Order: sequence, then structure tokens, then C-alpha cells
Amino acid sequence: MEASSYPLDPALIDRFAAIVGERHALRSEADIAPHVVEQRGLFGGRTALVLKPGSTEEVSRILKLATETGTPIVPQGGNTGLVGGQMPDGSGREVVLSLSRLNRIREIDLYSNTATVEAGVVLQTLQEAAAANDRLFPLALASQGSCQIGGNLSSNAGGIGALAYGTARDLCLGVEVVLPTGEIFDDLRKLKKDNTGYDLKNLFVGAEGTLGVITAAVVKLFPKPKGRELAWAAVGSPVAALKLFEAANDKAGTALTAFELMEKTPLDFALRHIPGTQAPFAEDYPWHVLIEISSGRSAEDARALMEAILGAGLEAGWVTDAVIAQNEAQAAALRHLREAMSDAQKPEGGSIKHDISVPVAAIPEFIERAGRAVQQVVPGSRVVCFGHMGDGNLHYNVSQPVGMDRASFLSHYRAMNDAVHAVVRALGGSFSAEHGIGRMKRDELIATQPAIATELMRRIKKAFDPAGIMNPDKVI
Amino acid sequence: MEASSYPLDPALIDRFAAIVGERHALRSEADIAPHVVEQRGLFGGRTALVLKPGSTEEVSRILKLATETGTPIVPQGGNTGLVGGQMPDGSGREVVLSLSRLNRIREIDLYSNTATVEAGVVLQTLQEAAAANDRLFPLALASQGSCQIGGNLSSNAGGIGALAYGTARDLCLGVEVVLPTGEIFDDLRKLKKDNTGYDLKNLFVGAEGTLGVITAAVVKLFPKPKGRELAWAAVGSPVAALKLFEAANDKAGTALTAFELMEKTPLDFALRHIPGTQAPFAEDYPWHVLIEISSGRSAEDARALMEAILGAGLEAGWVTDAVIAQNEAQAAALRHLREAMSDAQKPEGGSIKHDISVPVAAIPEFIERAGRAVQQVVPGSRVVCFGHMGDGNLHYNVSQPVGMDRASFLSHYRAMNDAVHAVVRALGGSFSAEHGIGRMKRDELIATQPAIATELMRRIKKAFDPAGIMNPDKVI
Repeated sequence: MEASSYPLDPALIDRFAAIVGERHALRSEADIAPHVVEQRGLFGGRTALVLKPGSTEEVSRILKLATETGTPIVPQGGNTGLVGGQMPDGSGREVVLSLSRLNRIREIDLYSNTATVEAGVVLQTLQEAAAANDRLFPLALASQGSCQIGGNLSSNAGGIGALAYGTARDLCLGVEVVLPTGEIFDDLRKLKKDNTGYDLKNLFVGAEGTLGVITAAVVKLFPKPKGRELAWAAVGSPVAALKLFEAANDKAGTALTAFELMEKTPLDFALRHIPGTQAPFAEDYPWHVLIEISSGRSAEDARALMEAILGAGLEAGWVTDAVIAQNEAQAAALRHLREAMSDAQKPEGGSIKHDISVPVAAIPEFIERAGRAVQQVVPGSRVVCFGHMGDGNLHYNVSQPVGMDRASFLSHYRAMNDAVHAVVRALGGSFSAEHGIGRMKRDELIATQPAIATELMRRIKKAFDPAGIMNPDKVI
Repeated sequence: MEASSYPLDPALIDRFAAIVGERHALRSEADIAPHVVEQRGLFGGRTALVLKPGSTEEVSRILKLATETGTPIVPQGGNTGLVGGQMPDGSGREVVLSLSRLNRIREIDLYSNTATVEAGVVLQTLQEAAAANDRLFPLALASQGSCQIGGNLSSNAGGIGALAYGTARDLCLGVEVVLPTGEIFDDLRKLKKDNTGYDLKNLFVGAEGTLGVITAAVVKLFPKPKGRELAWAAVGSPVAALKLFEAANDKAGTALTAFELMEKTPLDFALRHIPGTQAPFAEDYPWHVLIEISSGRSAEDARALMEAILGAGLEAGWVTDAVIAQNEAQAAALRHLREAMSDAQKPEGGSIKHDISVPVAAIPEFIERAGRAVQQVVPGSRVVCFGHMGDGNLHYNVSQPVGMDRASFLSHYRAMNDAVHAVVRALGGSFSAEHGIGRMKRDELIATQPAIATELMRRIKKAFDPAGIMNPDKVI
């Protein structure tokens, strides 16, 4: 396909390209390709131009030109989003703005325990930089090797560490944002307490690039735990998992830094399809949990807490079997097994995904009711349930029945979503816990949230982006 | 003074009064008086009408009528604010909306660890309700016996517990807000993870009633600590206090739930003027800290942590003397001594106050530089420095020199603020850490923050309150 088939004026493309330099303005089909497909293949789009600015000032000039010419801009980080927030639409009119070259860690401040990082810094790079300074940056996601901080903040990412340390929003103290007009809002604060007017930071965090482009942020660092223990346990049921979670909370408090629930199915899929995975037990168990303890006191303290939790679980009969990682290699293997569950569904055919949260205590009821609802939509569907139980957040995915036609199964996408989300709403939950709204859930958000919430969001959108150029048709 | 001297149409007053019933519409000078003076006497105002609605629906009807008639509304909670945010102006045109009758605790959910409370619930009432359910609501302020949750959220209150549990914003999961048009935005969520569009909750929290009226909220509860220890220690200097704080953090982590720094002067003032206060030591020391440990494990654990911290401090020479409360009565006495410092300045004459934050590590430098700056503005001024050291937040107040004329001292208010805030800015701090902007700091906020921040706040204000009736001339 030729660039000329796109409804974007070649002269305008040249003006945008001149801002970043020809090398960083991608125009060829081959260069553009990785930026217009995402991992699940649900949200393909087209664009004639991907811009890779090298500075906040270049972002500013791009957005100024975009506003002047009414050119829609789609910001993109590591392109790991699951709801299409980072994808251009099919018109070819939208320009993709990749933040990946803004990848400097500007400062690590050991006194304030903060890092000032640019949007394109890869999450794992920041984790490693923190570790090299004897600190912890606790945000941890399956995609951490490629996702970027700007995207993490724009989608208010959660992940495993959110249980003890909060989501990306909680980890962020200040932001630098380029507004649609090109103006730079520099709010890179390091203060824990600062009551100076409206909370603008939290508007940009989670806005998925629809109000402006986050180009840098100040994030919190934490002391590196002095002891860390990871255990994998088989539990009899979600109710048993809930009781174990309550006991773990009671015994470890804020030292409980992960509590993940996993059904047998995603475990089987991971073991079947993902290289390097190993079963934690010789026996087959229906439900599993992954528990992490991080002690600020000592390695012995972490071990004692973990043993107390598992001991209580075994004694009460909630835990059927358990293994504690004996070294970092074993811990890495258990983490890998948990993280492999995201990718392991693809080889099993069509998959319909849900990213839900309910009050923690309602998780067993949710699993039971949603399980029935799923079978009513497509009998024989295989539930692939795993996630952050301690946050009430499950990735409640549904793989097609064995042997069913993929397209035929996926034709039930909307009906399946509706059935699962009805259970979520009945339990006072959210149908978008941590992946965001993007293109995928915008219509459902507008259809199901109170009209006044939609109205307020529209007013904010208009107040910040009157020309409507920022990531159009996402979120709102 | 007669009501008729106020520029508010008597027929309109009758229409407002009809909404809440005559009993709850205060019109007489005597009934109104407590609502138009605040504790420091800085922000007097006038009004012809104080409305005390008994339901969210009544608040809705009041705001609808206010929008229709262009009547400015000033929301008021316990009237304990320190920046005039709850005070009407001098025009007599503004109607005060007291939330004090919305004082129901709607629900305490022990599974979700949340309380759903109305705006007029007194903070201490909520603390006690949580305790009666074996839970902790950690927000704690000197004014907790009269301040209300709605005001705490609208001003994003901090206080002593913010060190471990965060500010009011961090403690709030969802809000119910009446918008200026009278529409009710019901967002009473209990979920820890919920990424469904823009963060509206955090816009209303901290907006000081300028975007709408918070009528109810869902707040987090925590497990009641199994062990709690309180200690008072004399330290040699702010640098010694900082080193002790770092050691306490290292040893106790999230179990360190308060770390307050106090100079000798506020301690002397409290002992001199506030009944029931007792000196912690026979000797006179220049600097003091109050340390609280809350263990989720046991009373013994809390005691061991406290002894380890004080032991390290004594050994290193940072701590000169120390006392650990041996029972709840002793702990209450130490808390009372710290809390008495706010009120103890009044009898010493004119006081110029600052509510600042800087990065924690910069506190000693701030104290040194600000001390010099103060003496340059009014030689002989007495610095009254105390506050939440662990948050980098000090109430850095200045009492008049002994024998100086009060009015003459207070004529330096602005110059003193400018001198202290210049040091704050030089250290990357905030001139409004936890008390808010209100009437007091609006002009300074606009004068000192980036123009784009003011512009964005104005756009938000206009988007939410186009008629400009909500708490005019506060914040922005």
C-alpha cells in the first residue's frame, strides 16, 4: 500500500517529519507495521506516519502543529496495551506518536526516594535502575520487558505489586505533560503532601493519552526488602483461597506483597505451551495461589512469616500442598509460571477476555456465578481464571471449547462480555480493573455508567482538548 | 444588624428556607454568628442565611435553586479550616451551606474494610465507630472532635497518621457529590482497582467545595493494630531528628505510624497555656520528637521495635532523653501535649502561620534558612516550629516578639510569608502542604504557580461550575 492512499496531506507529513528529523519519522509500510498491530490482533489500524520525538520540546512542536492542522494524534508507548488505546483507527488520518526515544532516567534521588523518568523508559529498566541503587520500584507486569512508564501511567497499570504498593497512580508524585496546544505543564513534584489546588496529576494518569501526552514523571521508590519469600500453594477452592488470604493479611499485614489466585486451566495451558515452565507439584490440583512476602526487617523474618501463613493454611485444611522457593532461580521459575498464563491462551484458540474487580470477599461468589453464566452463552467454554485476588481483580478469560471454530466462538464476544459483566455489576464491581477503556470498552462504559459521569468526562475532555486531536474515540 | 441590610432578596431567602424547613434555615444574627467567624479570626464574613439540609436531595434542590438564581453558595463542615475556605465573603450575598445534619454513618462493611459516611460525620465519631468494629480509621487531627469528614476530604486533610496511611485523598475510595446544577454524582465505590475513565473522585477531593458539594464518601478502614507504642524523645537538633527518623524507618517500615518534630517553643507555650498538659522531662531540651509504632503482629513486637529505635538513637547520641508511655493514659497525655500546640500560640499574641512541605531530607536546612529569614523580617520573632517531619510537613509559625504591638506585628504577615515561602521554593517544597488554599493563599498560588496550571484549573472550574456559584474566590 502506498502512503498516498492515506488521507493525510504529503506536505503536512513533511512538516511533521521535519520536527523529529527524517530518521525518526517512519513512513514505509515495513517501518510502520509494528506500530499498527497489537499482540491480540483485535485492534488493527492504519497510519501514514509514526513520529519518534527525541525531546519534550519536539513533542510540544508536534502537538502544536497537530492542533493547528486538526491532525489526530495517537500516543504509543511499548504497544502492550490490551484495549486498543495505543492503536490508530482505520482511517489513516491519525498520526502515531511513539514515546520510545524519550527513554532517559533523568534522576534518582536517594534522599527523597524518587526517580524522575521519561515516558519511554521501559518498566524493567527502571526496576533494574532502582535495584542498582538498593531501592525497589514495585510496579511489576507480565509485559515489563517492553511496556513503558508513560503507558503504565496513562493506563494506571496495576499488576502483582499493587496489593501492597498501589497502582501506577499511587506510585506517581508528579508529571510533565504536553498539552494538545503544545504547552508544557511541568508538575514534576517530589512531595508527599502538597495541597495547591485541583489534582491535575491524577487527571492525566489513567486518561490514556486523551487529555495530553505524559512525557516524564516522578515516581516513588521504596527500600529494597531485606527478606523476600515466594511460595506456591494448592488450595481446595476459591473459598479456601479467601480464608488463606485473610490469614496472610492478618499475619503479615503490609509485608504481604502478592497474593495471586489461579485456576488449574491457565496452569495447564502455561505448562503445555510456554517453554521453560515447570509444574510446581506432581499432583493435579484445582486451584492455586502464589504468595509473596517482603520483609523490611530480615530474611529470617520473611521466612518465619511465610511459614506461619502456610502452616495455618495446612492446619486449617485450606492448603493442600505447598512449596517455598529455596533460591532466586526457583522463585524466578514460579514467577515465570504465573506470568506465562497471559500468553498461554493463544494456542488454545479464540479467547474472550475480562479484566474485572469485585470486593475481595465476593470473589468466590463471582467465580461461581460467572462460571454458570459463561456456560449459558457458549456451552463447553473453558474458563481461564487467574489474577490479583488480594485486589479483588481477576483476569477472567474464556477460551473456546475444544474443536469449535474460532470465528464462530468469537462472534459471541459481546454476549459473553455482557453475561460476565452483569455478574460483576450485581456484585458492585468494575468491568475495567486495570487494563483501561481504550477502544474496546468505550461504548460499554458510556452505556453503563451514570449519564452524569459521561457528561463530566466530556466536559473535561473538551476543556483540555477543545480541538479533539488527542487519541480520538478512546475512553470517552 | 437587620437581615434586610443584606443584598439577598427576602423572597429568595424564603424559597431556600422552604427546602430545608424553617427550623434548619438560620436567619438571626445570633444563630448565624458561629458560622461566620473562624478560630483565628482572620476571615470574618457576612451572610443572611445559613442552610442546614437533612438529605442529599435537599442539597440538590438548594444548588439547583442557587444556579437558577445565581446565588453563591459556601459549603461548611465543622468550621475548623485555617485558610478561610469555609467562610462567606463580606458582601452578604453568599449563602452558607452547613453539612452538619448529614451525619449518618450509612454502612460499615467489615469484608471490604470500608465505611460509607455522610459529609457531616464528625471525624472522631468515625474513629470511634471504626474502633467499635475492631478497625482503625487512621485520619487524626487536632480538631478531630469537631471537624467533619466532608471538610476533611474537601481540604485533603493530612495530620499525624498520614505518614503511614496517607492523606484524606488516599483514604477515600468513592464520593457522592452534588454538582452546582443540583445533579447528583453517585460514585460511592468500594473498589481498590477501577480504571473506568477519568479520575473524577480526586478532582472533588481537595477542591474545597469549588466544584460541587461532597455529601458522602466511601473511606478505607484498616485492621486495628495489635500493639501500639508511643514515645517522646528529646533530640539534639533537627539533623539528629532526621537521622533518628531514618533509623526508625529502617527498623519499623510501615509500622512507623507517626514521627512528629517539635521545637522547645511550642512545647513551652503548650505547658504554659493549655490545661492538663505536663512536661515529659524535668530538664529543658531544645528539640523533641513524638514517635508512634503500630504493629499488626503483637504488643510485644511494637514494644521491641520502639526499644530498638530509641536504643539506636541513644547509642548514636541523637537521642538525649526518652520516655515510652506505659499505659493508655500516659499515651493520651503525650498526644494531648502535641495537639495542644496549635491552640497554645494565641495567648502569646499575634501569630503568622505557614503550612509548608519540603523533601524530608531538606528539613534541617529549611529550619536553618527560614530561621534567619524570619529574623530579618521582624527581629525578635519567636519561631513556633512543629509538625509531621516524616511527611516533610511543618507548621512553621511565627509568634510576635514579647511586648510588641500585635497589629504592628501582623502588618508584616505578607512579608513574613514571602520570606518563608521563598526558602520553601528554593528547596523544591510547597507553601500549602495540608491546610489548603481557601481565601488565604489564592493570590499567592496564582502568582507563583506556572500560568498553565492556573489556566487548567480555571478550565476545570468553568467546566464544572459555569455559573460560578460554588464557593467563589476560593482556590482559583
